[in-house]
Amino acid sequence: MQKIFLSICLLCLSMAATAQTLTSPDKNLSFSFELQNGVPYYQLSYKNKPVIKSSRLGMELVNNPSLLDGFTVTKTEQKTVNETWEPVLGEQKTIRNNYNELLVTLTQKGQKERFIRLRFRVFNDGLGFRYEFPKQKELNYFIIKEERTEFALAGDHKIFWMPGDYDTNEYTYTTSKVSEIPSLQQKATIRISAQTPIPNPSVQTPSMMKSADGLYINIHEAALINYPAMHLNVDAKNLKMSVHLTPDAVGNKGYIQTESTSPWRTIVVSDKAANILTSKLILNLNEPTQYQDVSWIKPVKYIGVWWEYFIAGKSTWAYSTETNTKLTDDFSKYTPNGRHGANTENVKRHIDFAAEHGFDAVLVEGWNIGWEDWFGNWKEEVFDFVTPYPDFHVKELQAYAASKGVRLMMHHETSSSATNYERRLDKAFQFMVDNGYNAVKTGYVGPIIPRGEHHDGQWMVNHYLHVAKTAAESKIMVNSHEAVRPTGLNRTFPNWIAQESARGTEFEAMGGLAPEHTTILPFTRLMGGPMDFTPGIFQTDLATYGTGHGNRVNTTLVKQLAYYVTMYSPLQMAADLPENYLKFPDAFQFIKDVALDWDDTYVLEAEPGDYITTARKAKGKNEWYVGGITDENKRTATISFSFLPKGKDYVATIYADGPDATYDKKPQSYTVRKVKVNSKSILKQGLASGGGIAVSVKEGKASDLKGLKKL
Amino acid sequence: MQKIFLSICLLCLSMAATAQTLTSPDKNLSFSFELQNGVPYYQLSYKNKPVIKSSRLGMELVNNPSLLDGFTVTKTEQKTVNETWEPVLGEQKTIRNNYNELLVTLTQKGQKERFIRLRFRVFNDGLGFRYEFPKQKELNYFIIKEERTEFALAGDHKIFWMPGDYDTNEYTYTTSKVSEIPSLQQKATIRISAQTPIPNPSVQTPSMMKSADGLYINIHEAALINYPAMHLNVDAKNLKMSVHLTPDAVGNKGYIQTESTSPWRTIVVSDKAANILTSKLILNLNEPTQYQDVSWIKPVKYIGVWWEYFIAGKSTWAYSTETNTKLTDDFSKYTPNGRHGANTENVKRHIDFAAEHGFDAVLVEGWNIGWEDWFGNWKEEVFDFVTPYPDFHVKELQAYAASKGVRLMMHHETSSSATNYERRLDKAFQFMVDNGYNAVKTGYVGPIIPRGEHHDGQWMVNHYLHVAKTAAESKIMVNSHEAVRPTGLNRTFPNWIAQESARGTEFEAMGGLAPEHTTILPFTRLMGGPMDFTPGIFQTDLATYGTGHGNRVNTTLVKQLAYYVTMYSPLQMAADLPENYLKFPDAFQFIKDVALDWDDTYVLEAEPGDYITTARKAKGKNEWYVGGITDENKRTATISFSFLPKGKDYVATIYADGPDATYDKKPQSYTVRKVKVNSKSILKQGLASGGGIAVSVKEGKASDLKGLKKL
Repeated sequence: MQKIFLSICLLCLSMAATAQTLTSPDKNLSFSFELQNGVPYYQLSYKNKPVIKSSRLGMELVNNPSLLDGFTVTKTEQKTVNETWEPVLGEQKTIRNNYNELLVTLTQKGQKERFIRLRFRVFNDGLGFRYEFPKQKELNYFIIKEERTEFALAGDHKIFWMPGDYDTNEYTYTTSKVSEIPSLQQKATIRISAQTPIPNPSVQTPSMMKSADGLYINIHEAALINYPAMHLNVDAKNLKMSVHLTPDAVGNKGYIQTESTSPWRTIVVSDKAANILTSKLILNLNEPTQYQDVSWIKPVKYIGVWWEYFIAGKSTWAYSTETNTKLTDDFSKYTPNGRHGANTENVKRHIDFAAEHGFDAVLVEGWNIGWEDWFGNWKEEVFDFVTPYPDFHVKELQAYAASKGVRLMMHHETSSSATNYERRLDKAFQFMVDNGYNAVKTGYVGPIIPRGEHHDGQWMVNHYLHVAKTAAESKIMVNSHEAVRPTGLNRTFPNWIAQESARGTEFEAMGGLAPEHTTILPFTRLMGGPMDFTPGIFQTDLATYGTGHGNRVNTTLVKQLAYYVTMYSPLQMAADLPENYLKFPDAFQFIKDVALDWDDTYVLEAEPGDYITTARKAKGKNEWYVGGITDENKRTATISFSFLPKGKDYVATIYADGPDATYDKKPQSYTVRKVKVNSKSILKQGLASGGGIAVSVKEGKASDLKGLKKL
Repeated sequence: MQKIFLSICLLCLSMAATAQTLTSPDKNLSFSFELQNGVPYYQLSYKNKPVIKSSRLGMELVNNPSLLDGFTVTKTEQKTVNETWEPVLGEQKTIRNNYNELLVTLTQKGQKERFIRLRFRVFNDGLGFRYEFPKQKELNYFIIKEERTEFALAGDHKIFWMPGDYDTNEYTYTTSKVSEIPSLQQKATIRISAQTPIPNPSVQTPSMMKSADGLYINIHEAALINYPAMHLNVDAKNLKMSVHLTPDAVGNKGYIQTESTSPWRTIVVSDKAANILTSKLILNLNEPTQYQDVSWIKPVKYIGVWWEYFIAGKSTWAYSTETNTKLTDDFSKYTPNGRHGANTENVKRHIDFAAEHGFDAVLVEGWNIGWEDWFGNWKEEVFDFVTPYPDFHVKELQAYAASKGVRLMMHHETSSSATNYERRLDKAFQFMVDNGYNAVKTGYVGPIIPRGEHHDGQWMVNHYLHVAKTAAESKIMVNSHEAVRPTGLNRTFPNWIAQESARGTEFEAMGGLAPEHTTILPFTRLMGGPMDFTPGIFQTDLATYGTGHGNRVNTTLVKQLAYYVTMYSPLQMAADLPENYLKFPDAFQFIKDVALDWDDTYVLEAEPGDYITTARKAKGKNEWYVGGITDENKRTATISFSFLPKGKDYVATIYADGPDATYDKKPQSYTVRKVKVNSKSILKQGLASGGGIAVSVKEGKASDLKGLKKL
């Protein structure tokens, strides 16, 4: 077949085993599809290097003939799309959606004639494809036993991976060859509070790989709706990955009613690591939002009554000394433990701080009854989401916050009792509306109820979306923690503003994060969407709190600043205690200044596991912010300011690690300096071991600029 | 120990293996409890005949030392209660609650010292006992692997049983010896739409037995709350039954948080079958209602757009010809199938009929979108409970019904997608309130969602109660179908006004009910609470509808009348088509007259599997209704009117089978005659094969009485 790319080009041919081919708009990617003895196969190459070798596709069904073989191609359609769109919030004001598409209709003539469609889209930055199940006489309902999509790798790539698990994304990353995964799987499966590791060799997605010949390959999925999340079985001998869907309580892997589609399977590929980070392929494969009014969806910079809970001995979510409580209990009759964090006075102190320093909101965890025994008992009725502890005065605090122009942020820890949350959801959101809350942090700690279901299963995938959609009806933004990792659904449901779904800052207080961790996250977890990583810890030596366990946050102070740029999210926390920020007001200024929503993003340097340097232009403002981070190795970042408009000088404030800084010995050594920069400026700046760099660039008055040294 | 019965008698003794004994207030029942080598055992006898031989008690736990042995008795307490109370609706205006109680504290000194309590109550009509788990340091949360309560029978009793099953109570009854159960189990396990038979020999409760020496023994449970329903394993060799709890999706049998109790295990016993039927032991073991206002809970006599769905070809729940629909579909674009029952015109016709004949309500099934493919696909989002089909005009019908003084009865078929129902419940009830509905019939056809859960499991037990309690907040009465069988919770939650939970009239159109079926139901299913049996089928030969399958309702017309008395429920349907009632206006008068709520009940004759004759006095009225039924054998019922006040004549209307009546050949042969009766009257009336008798007794004016013959 000729390679023709017309806006709408329908080729309705009855062809047997002829391969269908597509290239990317820039011709770098070549894709082909063919049937081999009735079995569908695809392959992908980049600049003539194989990315995915010939790999089969298909669906194994329960109690129904499978959709694996016996197919003939009964129709093929091609089209090209080249358009732009604007996300509500994002890393770029405008996103280009440019791909060539092949839609193949496969007909299976068995006892009953059935057909499915495979839709392939080749972008300049990769391939997306999905299964489509049209409504038809002989295919209305079916249950998936397993999706048989394969990814035959072209070599024994380096891979940044965590083990496959139905219930957690909070593992650390292991870096190895693909062939080494089986021997490392057990070690990589560290203890997590709720986990269901897949016993066979497997990895989670987004799965980031690098080939020996320098190709960066990222496998994930887009638009995960009404379908279980995908893991990847690893055939280390044949270097082949295959889809492993998350089962439900009875072992099934998806209840499908036609008309329906699978999520997109995505392969982002480039010979430049930076291009992986700037790929918008996953967002492009999600549907535009149908929300009519998005004016209420806004970036949120927030502080919280939160970090103090992780510093042993400081304060607690729980109010009382009881260890066995019920929602029907009168908590005012319990003995206060004297260390309850979410008390009115402490919250007011945080509101004052937020107001003084320009934060939008104050998250308060532990405000509602039930924290005494919220976790570990597979208890269903843990929280009711509407009853405050006796020392948390909702109305008083709301009035106080409103008077200071600050919002309180709601917290709905569900303890993974999703049934309990769903049956209380309408009342919980009504409570928020009645009391002026416009954003909620949700949490899913522990094993799921319905018992036997998993965080990554179809039922829970539907649950998270149900929460987000229901929240939208009340103009509430949702920031979900411990939910299934994101797949770009923030395009379609922009009030699902951010997620955790990875090992975030809280783990710095529970064993620590490796310095390289945050150089991997943007290549893995953040491929799916914004992360509420909760950066901003200035007091990195946690021993100062007298915990005695010697925990520390494994970064320099400046690296914490850099995260606000390297870890994209329109919702960002300044996670440390207010008093710690007051000790470092000059560094704190960066957190106060940094934007959350962007006109443009420039990844200046990147190598997964090693370093990332990113610059972004604030949305609608002539302000730029640069963040650079390194792993445990010190390095020199090279920041070219060529992203600035030509011919004009700007004021750059450079937050740099001190010459003697190291993440473990001298994390709080830093310098802040102001210089003059323009589009020709280049900054070469040393980053400490576990260190970073942060730069803000603003327009200055002539008088401001006059006194500044040129970079 | 002496048999002392004081109002409060505390005996705090530390005793080892001494048996504790109790008798019933009337001394007929003798109970004893003892520890044998640290294992708790109990036994029960009636008039010196053994009822339950020495049987062990205990709980096997998951991941926790079990509560089976190693116990010492650390405290015993006894008390006597003798009081009366009034149910909101019931078979008697006043119920006596009179028992002797033994409360035993058992302490287990293992690695951790734990204690439980066993509470035994001996009434004149039987024994109730339960496990109590007080809040304590070393026992806060646990999971039950199995409850090890045993019932060692004293002989190879005759038993009226259906096989143990986690998902259905809709089996037919088998009558056999206990020892014959294993060989009959497979045959008894007939096909039901959603079923999960217990593989080992087992029966459901209420389990009705009769000993060779004439003792009637009924085993069931009371106050099933936050616990799985109980089945009984049958050890046919040793004639021992043991508790088999319904597991959840992961095989666990109950998540317990102290303070907590098990449901009561109940053994109703008498040498008179009638006493089984009049026992109020199960209601007495339930807690009084906490509802402040019960004025809105009222008896309901209703008709419905319902039976026509069971007469093949007449009409359908579904509106359109589609077979694959989603809640997001626009059903007005689908092709109507032309036979949709719940159309505005048909419903108005029913409203007219209800108004004319004094019915309270009209049930309308099939009013809401989703019936095209509601069942069989384990589909979660089947119904939304708020969207009518295009031809059902809610506002118009509500106004029409209100203008005629009739209520529409809501129908919430959940298709067992309990999660879907719970997440939509608040909106569903709000819709009812907004549109004037005050009662809902719920349905649970098909396998449960959460998938892997069962109709009888702890999660669903909590679900049904959640629905009933949430309904009460909106003053809505609930009539649940296919829910777990009742355990007297209508005392505590009186708006849970009735249930189906057995093979009811609908099965007459799906293969038929054996004529004996309804002589067993009051001894089994109805022991737990009112049944919405939906009697009143006058056109018993279903072949007249041209269905071609020759189905018939296996009763005479008069037996259908008798059900309104023999099958207690404060909510009763006249289930047949309006036009069939108009053909038999004299017989229909009984249905129009019969009361639903009672001052007193008199079981005049009864033998499970054979016959029942019951008389009841209408609440607050000098009206009595008598119903008598027989199985496939004709018989002569003897009705003594001694329940009437002495010295006064009343008008009795006797609805009797015609001399040539039989259920299969001449079901519509009947006579209606009026006679004069007084408290000395005795009626001996022949009942046809599969027949019945119904009598209404009212006060009459002298002029009325004058013309009547004395009975």
